[in-house]
Amino acid sequence: MAPIAVTPNGTSLRMQVSKDLNRYKNKDQNTIDLVLNQFRCLIADLCQQFNGGHPGSAMGMAAIGVALWKYVMKYSPNNPNYFNRDRFVLSNGHTCLFQYSFLHLTGYKAMTFDQLKSYHSARQDSFCPGHPEIEHEGIEVTTGPLGQGIANAVGLAMATKNLAATYNKPSYNLVNNTTWCMIGDACLQEGVALEAIQLAGHWKLNNLVVIYDNNQITCDGSVDLCSTEDVNTKMQACGWEVIDVQDGCYDVKGLVLALLRAKSSTEKPTFINVRTIIGIGSKVAGDAKAHGAAYGDEDVRSIKQAFGMNPDEHFVLHDEVYSFFEDLKERGDALESQWKQMLDSYANEHPELHEEFMKRVHGEFTKDWKSIIPSKDVLPSSPTATRKSAGLVCNPLAEQLKNMMVGTADLSPSVNMIWKDKVDFQHPELKTECGINGDYSGRYIHWGIREHAMAAISNGLAAFNKGTFLPVTSSFFMFYIYAAPGVRMGALQNLQAIHIATHDSIGTGEDGPTHQPIALAALYRAMPNFLYIRPCDSEEVAGAFISALDAKDTPSMISLSRQTVEQYPRYSSRDGAQRGAYVFIEEDRADVTLIGVGAEMCFAVKTRDVLRENFGITARIVSFPCQRLFEKQPVEYKRRVLQYRSNMPRVVIEAYAVNGWERYADAGFSMASFGKSLPGKDAYKFFGFDEKVIAPEVARLVEDVRRDGIESLRGEFRDLNPVKSAH
Amino acid sequence: MAPIAVTPNGTSLRMQVSKDLNRYKNKDQNTIDLVLNQFRCLIADLCQQFNGGHPGSAMGMAAIGVALWKYVMKYSPNNPNYFNRDRFVLSNGHTCLFQYSFLHLTGYKAMTFDQLKSYHSARQDSFCPGHPEIEHEGIEVTTGPLGQGIANAVGLAMATKNLAATYNKPSYNLVNNTTWCMIGDACLQEGVALEAIQLAGHWKLNNLVVIYDNNQITCDGSVDLCSTEDVNTKMQACGWEVIDVQDGCYDVKGLVLALLRAKSSTEKPTFINVRTIIGIGSKVAGDAKAHGAAYGDEDVRSIKQAFGMNPDEHFVLHDEVYSFFEDLKERGDALESQWKQMLDSYANEHPELHEEFMKRVHGEFTKDWKSIIPSKDVLPSSPTATRKSAGLVCNPLAEQLKNMMVGTADLSPSVNMIWKDKVDFQHPELKTECGINGDYSGRYIHWGIREHAMAAISNGLAAFNKGTFLPVTSSFFMFYIYAAPGVRMGALQNLQAIHIATHDSIGTGEDGPTHQPIALAALYRAMPNFLYIRPCDSEEVAGAFISALDAKDTPSMISLSRQTVEQYPRYSSRDGAQRGAYVFIEEDRADVTLIGVGAEMCFAVKTRDVLRENFGITARIVSFPCQRLFEKQPVEYKRRVLQYRSNMPRVVIEAYAVNGWERYADAGFSMASFGKSLPGKDAYKFFGFDEKVIAPEVARLVEDVRRDGIESLRGEFRDLNPVKSAH
Repeated sequence: MAPIAVTPNGTSLRMQVSKDLNRYKNKDQNTIDLVLNQFRCLIADLCQQFNGGHPGSAMGMAAIGVALWKYVMKYSPNNPNYFNRDRFVLSNGHTCLFQYSFLHLTGYKAMTFDQLKSYHSARQDSFCPGHPEIEHEGIEVTTGPLGQGIANAVGLAMATKNLAATYNKPSYNLVNNTTWCMIGDACLQEGVALEAIQLAGHWKLNNLVVIYDNNQITCDGSVDLCSTEDVNTKMQACGWEVIDVQDGCYDVKGLVLALLRAKSSTEKPTFINVRTIIGIGSKVAGDAKAHGAAYGDEDVRSIKQAFGMNPDEHFVLHDEVYSFFEDLKERGDALESQWKQMLDSYANEHPELHEEFMKRVHGEFTKDWKSIIPSKDVLPSSPTATRKSAGLVCNPLAEQLKNMMVGTADLSPSVNMIWKDKVDFQHPELKTECGINGDYSGRYIHWGIREHAMAAISNGLAAFNKGTFLPVTSSFFMFYIYAAPGVRMGALQNLQAIHIATHDSIGTGEDGPTHQPIALAALYRAMPNFLYIRPCDSEEVAGAFISALDAKDTPSMISLSRQTVEQYPRYSSRDGAQRGAYVFIEEDRADVTLIGVGAEMCFAVKTRDVLRENFGITARIVSFPCQRLFEKQPVEYKRRVLQYRSNMPRVVIEAYAVNGWERYADAGFSMASFGKSLPGKDAYKFFGFDEKVIAPEVARLVEDVRRDGIESLRGEFRDLNPVKSAH
Repeated sequence: MAPIAVTPNGTSLRMQVSKDLNRYKNKDQNTIDLVLNQFRCLIADLCQQFNGGHPGSAMGMAAIGVALWKYVMKYSPNNPNYFNRDRFVLSNGHTCLFQYSFLHLTGYKAMTFDQLKSYHSARQDSFCPGHPEIEHEGIEVTTGPLGQGIANAVGLAMATKNLAATYNKPSYNLVNNTTWCMIGDACLQEGVALEAIQLAGHWKLNNLVVIYDNNQITCDGSVDLCSTEDVNTKMQACGWEVIDVQDGCYDVKGLVLALLRAKSSTEKPTFINVRTIIGIGSKVAGDAKAHGAAYGDEDVRSIKQAFGMNPDEHFVLHDEVYSFFEDLKERGDALESQWKQMLDSYANEHPELHEEFMKRVHGEFTKDWKSIIPSKDVLPSSPTATRKSAGLVCNPLAEQLKNMMVGTADLSPSVNMIWKDKVDFQHPELKTECGINGDYSGRYIHWGIREHAMAAISNGLAAFNKGTFLPVTSSFFMFYIYAAPGVRMGALQNLQAIHIATHDSIGTGEDGPTHQPIALAALYRAMPNFLYIRPCDSEEVAGAFISALDAKDTPSMISLSRQTVEQYPRYSSRDGAQRGAYVFIEEDRADVTLIGVGAEMCFAVKTRDVLRENFGITARIVSFPCQRLFEKQPVEYKRRVLQYRSNMPRVVIEAYAVNGWERYADAGFSMASFGKSLPGKDAYKFFGFDEKVIAPEVARLVEDVRRDGIESLRGEFRDLNPVKSAH
């Protein structure tokens, strides 16, 4: 099937567009030319002033911006948070001047001309960082790491579909916004985007439009250095409608028609392939040199000459340009007031739904959510895998908290995140081979084996409106290394999400070293604004979920065992877990503190027994599920738990690389190599995780301290595990 | 274009296959049926014995295995390392019993029946781990993390193309092997595979055949839960030839024809879409339950009945089955001896090329490679970005060491890895828009914006034959978070590679927090068998490269600055850098040790000056480019450098999360949040990286130690940076 073609000036566009939406008038063309000229010169100036930045694509995309912001997108400059606004994502985030400039022209209050000029400056109060950041007015998601923006856009479009299916009623399209996503050539190369594209096609997200700034240039040169695929056919094969626009630099009318056609697409997401020229007007137009550097004074002069501007004037925007965008505030106000009127009628006609909807709008949880979490006495007291405990805790929550969107990277049978009567998020007409269907109101997501997209799309869900959605992802912990770029972007954007990471540590067993995480916890423990929580039993799992749900501006990862682990109802505490670490077993005159973590708590407890029985050594135990939560505790609490300055060494026991534990312990029993394919308990034994191996090593340490004093340990963290390698 | 169709029994295959290659005879069919039956029962038994593992796809793929190992693949069971063997990659690594069983049947010595039965056992000497591991006979790469195997296969196919273009001569096809890659449904969902597929199509790797075990089942259920794309059309759009095989469970003849056709494809890589039934013969055949669990005694009995076997017998392989594969050893011996004869003639006709080729075969570097590295006196002495220094060191190496394959994820202008007269690795007929072309002998690779594939394909290059290729990748450090799953698999497989990670730390500046790594170093420092090296100036960059080149079984990452940094020819030392840490500036009676790292060394040096001038405090400085290298030093050396047990605190200064430094330091001046978009020097200042901020904090620490003794620091690592957050 050939793509729909838009030729210059939209003349042969084979499409039907609702007339009343098309506000483009042929008489606008003269002004448009002026806007494009001045916009392009402005971009060149903004990069030139501090001799840096990315001018090329922003200049190339100018006409796309006019079509979007002037004619097509629904938004309200006076209220950037108008709930039913269209969402715009700049997946090629380095072209941010494109977005900043249109936010300025359309009248977003924060984006003053003075602010616009702060791009690449040393101003700490700039709203114009090198890539768009969610904190600033009019920016829906932070972009820059390529490929992720398109995944975020998929999440935003899913959010609309889900809300619409849940709350819209006849005559009440409360939520029906479109998500627009600009991408460059790079976003068609990054795997995360390719994953997200598959999913958007599968879900038939017809409210998603991806606009491809096809300038065929990346940093290295022309795109054909590394990509020669037939992108339109590929997108069609992925379930997208494709529209071609030949003259994306000037054909605003054609672009408007293409955008409107995309918006009215009834069945599929739309991919608009727009040919543009990077750095148009510059001497390096169409060249890789136009991408990521200022053009130099001389070239900026010639750009201005090319566009009929005075080369001696800088940062020029005529009144006519501002006037051209003047109607948009009023239009935005009208959009929002119509929406509010509709909402008022809806309140009368559907009072209960309205109440729930408004809670979603305000990001409020069900009030008594903590009471939904099972109490200690109903949680298992016999050995249970913490992944199973997580299901016991999370599933009742997911059933009742309508904002939870729970999904898995194809590990439903392993991660235990399916609740009673869950409905899948699916296109309502999909009939699967296995007979499990769903609709857009569903809140259980089959992400497929796409961990990176799972995390990045979840960020889009969370970014739709603060608190309206709480994404819960799930996979094996090891494969959160695939998801890491997306998880990080969630932390950077203060987007709450819960990542359920099962099969942690070498205890995962037979799948072997490819599936046994060793170093990954070090990344998540070091990550700013992130909680990596490794509970040791069901009670701590409950605590972990409470911490994760309480952290409204922070994503969390709950790290869980595949294998059954001992339950410690006598010692474990959800309140303790929420403090990051707590005294698990106290002893009056202890010789040593053992720090137990997650699935390896059993080794701490059993080592304590062996130390007492075989060595006459008294050990107290600290449970330490989360370093970041512990860091937030008052210093007195921390000292009480870890017993600083007493003559008692502290030994952490964890089957990971020990990096980072040196802050809390004097010695560690940990992993110095990758794992090994053995049944879980044998893998532990192979690597020395056995109280009969651990206890003598700890005893030796205690003897050293008795002999030489605790000071002798200063500065030389002791690695106690005699097993150094798998090979 | 419709895919080429193979219908049952290969009757309507529209293809021409060289007759002499086709060793399939119709009379084989009866034996084949027996082989398939017994193979499938064997798989069921092997999973049942320890009640675990992945039987379903291995059973489904049996006929594909017969076609490959019996009729099509070139290999030598007596010498698994025969240089010109076909490479086989099991990208769906969980189906490893498939491969193990065929290695056994075809006579690989290590794969005894006893070994085969060790799958999922507690045997530490098993050659049958839960996923294939490169250490074992007949296994080309370690797989399991989905999607990466297909990328490895692309690397193996590139290796062949590069060697062929470099060493083959008329009548001497020294290297002309095919790479065969099995994939499952998951590998068509993971982004890394989608990236690799694009590249293989772009490079027209016609020596690569991907065989898709299309059973339409993943863990969650049928594939249409999350994928409904038109995969054949998509593959064609990506530049692949597509062949369809309808009856992949039984049609060995059709499979042989399809495989031979793929092998003879003259222009493109080939994708063979083979319909199979997961768990064929079982009661759960075609269901997700057939994927990842043993079938239970009862079902195993019924499987045997279905396949005409005695349900009371286990692990049965008749002599007839073994006989069927008996010819393969001899055939392999003949293949290798023909190849050796050819090599002998080649030695006579092309003695110099032969010598070089044999060096490549034996993985030997150019002898005096260290002398290629510029000496200190020719390296820059004025401020220079370490990314520039890396170019000065690496480019002469890349020019002369023929095994180096250097590439970039589209950051050629930023990473400085282009050497004089470099030739791109490209299809020889490609004519790019920007006029930069190449051929298969080229050793500079444009990976596009595909960091994950870059790392995973590089693993394939390195795995082709130990030392024959030394892959060098490059990108911004931050985007090695995309590449991390591949980088990790290289470390796990002991595959040497060098990752050039530029734009490290917040010094990267205006691009902002999305591009400023904070936590990522913690991952790479914790990763087993990996060197994360952060040199402070050109001389240390030289040391970093020597360490990386010396590490024949270990990948390295050299972490470099975007911004110019001071050079310290008086203090810096390549020998010191190779020891991981060394005394940079010694002082007889120092009050404090400052640990300087990479681009932030300047803060250590300037803080030392301020401490002396304003506080009368004497500071010595340790440069600490690599924790892992330092760990390998004798304890005496470590104590000498870090001055354990003296009354002198140690303060690390680095603009990353401090996690892990607690082992070497008592206090840290580090980052507690994500970064900020500001020019590099302003970003540093914003976060307190300024000697005027650092020195007073260090002075306070020194005073505390003077007053309370060094013991007072034990157990409470001090975070000295008063700036806690970007916001």
